[in-house]
Amino acid sequence: MNDLSSEIDDIFHSKSMAIFGVSRKGGLGNVLLQAFIDQEFPNIFIVNPTITESNLEILGIPVFSDLESIGKPVDLAICSTHPKYVKDIIIECGQYGVKAVVIFSAGFGEKNEKGKKAEEELLKIAQKYKMRLIGPNCMGLYCPKTGLSFFPALPTESGSLGFISQSGSIANILGFSCMVKGIHFSKSISYGNAIDLGFNDFLEYLGYDPDTKLIACYIEGVKDGRRFIKLVKKIRKPIIIWKAGITPAGEQAAQSHTGSLCGDNKLWDIVFDQYGVIRVYNLEEMMSMIQAFINPIPVKNHRVAIISGPGGPAVSSADACEMNNLILAELTDESKKKLQNFIPEFGSSTSNPIDLSLQATFDPILEKNAYEIVGRDPNVDMMLIYLTMLTPRYKDLIKLQEEISKPIAIATAIDVNISSDPFSNYIKRSFIHIRAKKVPNIIKKMNQKGISIHPNEHIAAKALYNIFQYYNKSSKSNF
Amino acid sequence: MNDLSSEIDDIFHSKSMAIFGVSRKGGLGNVLLQAFIDQEFPNIFIVNPTITESNLEILGIPVFSDLESIGKPVDLAICSTHPKYVKDIIIECGQYGVKAVVIFSAGFGEKNEKGKKAEEELLKIAQKYKMRLIGPNCMGLYCPKTGLSFFPALPTESGSLGFISQSGSIANILGFSCMVKGIHFSKSISYGNAIDLGFNDFLEYLGYDPDTKLIACYIEGVKDGRRFIKLVKKIRKPIIIWKAGITPAGEQAAQSHTGSLCGDNKLWDIVFDQYGVIRVYNLEEMMSMIQAFINPIPVKNHRVAIISGPGGPAVSSADACEMNNLILAELTDESKKKLQNFIPEFGSSTSNPIDLSLQATFDPILEKNAYEIVGRDPNVDMMLIYLTMLTPRYKDLIKLQEEISKPIAIATAIDVNISSDPFSNYIKRSFIHIRAKKVPNIIKKMNQKGISIHPNEHIAAKALYNIFQYYNKSSKSNF
Repeated sequence: MNDLSSEIDDIFHSKSMAIFGVSRKGGLGNVLLQAFIDQEFPNIFIVNPTITESNLEILGIPVFSDLESIGKPVDLAICSTHPKYVKDIIIECGQYGVKAVVIFSAGFGEKNEKGKKAEEELLKIAQKYKMRLIGPNCMGLYCPKTGLSFFPALPTESGSLGFISQSGSIANILGFSCMVKGIHFSKSISYGNAIDLGFNDFLEYLGYDPDTKLIACYIEGVKDGRRFIKLVKKIRKPIIIWKAGITPAGEQAAQSHTGSLCGDNKLWDIVFDQYGVIRVYNLEEMMSMIQAFINPIPVKNHRVAIISGPGGPAVSSADACEMNNLILAELTDESKKKLQNFIPEFGSSTSNPIDLSLQATFDPILEKNAYEIVGRDPNVDMMLIYLTMLTPRYKDLIKLQEEISKPIAIATAIDVNISSDPFSNYIKRSFIHIRAKKVPNIIKKMNQKGISIHPNEHIAAKALYNIFQYYNKSSKSNF
Repeated sequence: MNDLSSEIDDIFHSKSMAIFGVSRKGGLGNVLLQAFIDQEFPNIFIVNPTITESNLEILGIPVFSDLESIGKPVDLAICSTHPKYVKDIIIECGQYGVKAVVIFSAGFGEKNEKGKKAEEELLKIAQKYKMRLIGPNCMGLYCPKTGLSFFPALPTESGSLGFISQSGSIANILGFSCMVKGIHFSKSISYGNAIDLGFNDFLEYLGYDPDTKLIACYIEGVKDGRRFIKLVKKIRKPIIIWKAGITPAGEQAAQSHTGSLCGDNKLWDIVFDQYGVIRVYNLEEMMSMIQAFINPIPVKNHRVAIISGPGGPAVSSADACEMNNLILAELTDESKKKLQNFIPEFGSSTSNPIDLSLQATFDPILEKNAYEIVGRDPNVDMMLIYLTMLTPRYKDLIKLQEEISKPIAIATAIDVNISSDPFSNYIKRSFIHIRAKKVPNIIKKMNQKGISIHPNEHIAAKALYNIFQYYNKSSKSNF
């Protein structure tokens, strides 16, 4: 880890914190405070100069009129006040020896020229005190391991996903989207206007961070393109990037959102392609690729076998594979013969795509046997499985995967997270289903074995192709 | 309604039915039987020649050894036996005066040449008796109004969606996918190998059917292309088509699935484009377009306003609109001024895309006011609203829509159907949410007012553009 990354690592391991912007009447500052309380961050102090009575507590946290009154070291400050107070707070933090400040407050460079000048001033002050800044106009840092957070009720479990976002709200939304899929974070960073620490700094850090196995990013623009390219070339972990502001309308929106210059979209495509960056276009795709790359299985070829209970989706999945440059595997004669032995004679198909027929809805052994035979076929490099909904057969798949180790993407017609909602009382008489409460943990188990779950066959096929690409085109793969 | 359509209408209004293929030990025939019992179809008789004892009942339905023993008229027969028995059953049905037979059994033309010859024979027998055939290799008919069904636990509620599917499993899956979105069917038809009644016949029928306002289809191939083109040209209802088998791999899969010749994909595109057919590529897109077209609002222009709480998705939604050929509306100065009056000064944007800032997560009035101002702006033809999750503010939107009548597409980061799952105990402290049990009914209410809900901003934008296209390009629109 280089010096800059060590410095960032220190910020993530802050032991004490002062929050500016918490008030008796509530507001966003109090929401932020609740976030840290939920994560049981060790030492939190509220600083509010308008509160003068002693021994006051808000949400059980002591309130001080200034840093000096705390009388203990403060590693990190969170600033969530009106922008007009930020400068004085930064000075106070610098004087008190705070190591870093997260400036949650907005109303700076993204707003106008005056805001840009104010940012320059803040940076100068911070540099004077050798203090690092994150933001302004950001959510800051989430790190369940050390108790950092930016929103109440985010999971306290740690995971291996590192996320860097230019948009605070996306950092937030992704936290909850991942939660319902059983995916947890090593670190999540919303860096906002990045007047000091910015995208490339955090990207480099997550490249070193041993807790981070997969890096996902939301960006509108990147300030130092050359450094970015050097980093994606160097980092030997999968990197997924959602780059917004790719049309004139989007670029204009990005300017008022984060003051970003978005750059030429074709250029981004070339860079992403050359260095094996996985590109996504919305949160849904992001969730799919995170699942596919949280523990991807190295693969040399891209011959895919499709297994489907429903026949129509088998056809559409074949389309999806071809549209995503995958090759439909030709099963060995031995596999075909074995399949013929148990797949129903009618309304089915034993050649790829394998159609298990309607019978699969009632006879779970069909699914299990098909996984076994097709999964072990030497002509099959990866599998795309289409299900009406997730069934308890996922256990067989996990068990099989321990022996075959091949990338598997599942597309489900009905979202796995809704399978046992109240209205599924209707459904459960008709389908073999799983209780929704168990779903996040099931998805987690599958993801850990290189099995990902997707909302449609096209994203599933794209995930499989991306894995193949990552291990074969990208110069930086570990394969 | 022409003669053929009247004949199909009569089949849908069958009053009595005989099921072949139900047995004491269970199986697919019994599953089908349960489907009709669930729909309370008036007069059901089981016919099984291997059962000789009198007064036997299975699932409470009387069993007869042949049609003759029933002694009452039988309008419709369902045949779910091994294919080798089908010919004799068809003869028996013809002799007894049955009006139509649904041949659920597979193992015919989709299998081999011998199967194709067997189909020809079946057709000849049916024609001799002036009896109509649906199938083989199909699920048959679902019509909650008259009690027809093809799977247990399908909703008993009627709606205005007509669905025609070459794949039985997709007809089935769509039933349940629609159920969780509160969408109900007038009729759903799985026609399989279509040796007699086929896709065009049912398309024409649904074109006439007063209960059907929207026609959705899953097809792999169409036998009479000229008639198909005439029909899509003539029918003055929106038609959504999921055409699979569009790549060589998919086409090959389709051949073993339904024995279809898929045709040139470019040609399909030209036809769909010329006659305003809405094209989708998977079930997820199908669900989006069904919602958008179940009660579409006529629109002359395509200037869209984007409202988003989260700022990142606002940028990405602007991209999505431009990528889908929509124009970002320029709000009137009056609207901008009104927005400035209540939208937070920082971390927000009052120009399109309108970014309500993080504050929107806590302050529901922001959302309500933004809908009002933007919705009534004369420069705005349609709205794309991005939400973290569905909030109770949908009520304000419905109320507003009664006055403004503009197409509205909502994209939600977290699927509306999972908003109140067990694990959302974490979420509900942080977000304004809706109880999942209520969701299907809420979506239904919104759909009825021309408000559709989508899994990402790109599909939402596509839905809006499709509505614009339908009313402006299609020669058959009612606008």
